[in-house]
Amino acid sequence: MSFSSSLLEQAVNEFAKLPGIGKKTALRLVLHLIKQPAEETQFFADTLARMRKEIKFCTKCCNVSDTEVCNICSNISRKKQIVCVVENIRDVIAIESTQQFNGLYHVLGGVISPLDGVGPDQLTIEALLHRIKEDEVEELIFALNPNIQGDTTLFYISKKLKEHPIKITTIARGIAFGGELEYADELTLARSLQNRQPVASYVSMK
Amino acid sequence: MSFSSSLLEQAVNEFAKLPGIGKKTALRLVLHLIKQPAEETQFFADTLARMRKEIKFCTKCCNVSDTEVCNICSNISRKKQIVCVVENIRDVIAIESTQQFNGLYHVLGGVISPLDGVGPDQLTIEALLHRIKEDEVEELIFALNPNIQGDTTLFYISKKLKEHPIKITTIARGIAFGGELEYADELTLARSLQNRQPVASYVSMK
Repeated sequence: MSFSSSLLEQAVNEFAKLPGIGKKTALRLVLHLIKQPAEETQFFADTLARMRKEIKFCTKCCNVSDTEVCNICSNISRKKQIVCVVENIRDVIAIESTQQFNGLYHVLGGVISPLDGVGPDQLTIEALLHRIKEDEVEELIFALNPNIQGDTTLFYISKKLKEHPIKITTIARGIAFGGELEYADELTLARSLQNRQPVASYVSMK
Repeated sequence: MSFSSSLLEQAVNEFAKLPGIGKKTALRLVLHLIKQPAEETQFFADTLARMRKEIKFCTKCCNVSDTEVCNICSNISRKKQIVCVVENIRDVIAIESTQQFNGLYHVLGGVISPLDGVGPDQLTIEALLHRIKEDEVEELIFALNPNIQGDTTLFYISKKLKEHPIKITTIARGIAFGGELEYADELTLARSLQNRQPVASYVSMK
């Protein structure tokens, strides 16, 4: 691309550094900003800079937070005995959106994946183990993505807790609501057969 | 979406104001920034704010520019007698990328579209007419999108210049290179039949 303005070019290049934003999209975004009042771009820039400078990670659950301890961990109406282990912040937001979970979270910051060079030490597993002993956690719910890396992480942490009296569960895996049997892969279908539920409990959930 | 951090939420909302960026994409972009060093976000924010504050529109061609007169208009090696009329800045960048045009541009800032409330007065048509008389322009090449609005604008401006001795052309419309006849719409196909070219001139271009 050939620009008549180096200011424009720099702004486009900065936008194009973001994941999933190519040069053409970046140009569209910058031209949109140019069309809007100057104060809006200033506010956009200030909001981003302030967010990056002031955002913290909760010292308990490692979720992003405005304060030392996030508002989920410091909420006294939530059950501190149940901790849901997730891979990243996006998973916390997804589960919170269901409004079905009233415990706390623990954000691992990734999953064990030797091929990507991610071992247990890069994750917040030590903090989780420390927290379980400290805070008298009774149940650990794993809500990791259903793949090899998720399962490896699940097995690694549960092995570490073998000696510890704690209930360990994982979210149900099976055919998604609205999904169709014929398009489900074999592994999902096989697992959902193995983990079949009595109809009585299914009906009671409705 | 339910956020544990209002700093995060504000940044996501700001990103989601951009065209084509939804909340989920905005969240992905903000979480990407959080993972990068803080200086990078600061630089991103500074670049955007500076661009918006300092960018100018060329007083001759209305293209974006760092200076009063853009570097295309002030380039002495370009032919000032040929002016290519385009709808917006993106079209200038597209034509410049072909490296086939050595004249100047004129950015209309849109096309006449009564349905969208855009009349001739909202465009830079007066500046164009003034410029044609002032700078002794010999040829005006219209490179507008081939639709009703583009054609209306083309006819409006050419009518205004009826009395003026100037060559007015428009970029060729026809089947795109690599396109297939059977998928072309009737109007394009009909026009490309009407505007058929002698094979001799086609071969000489190869």
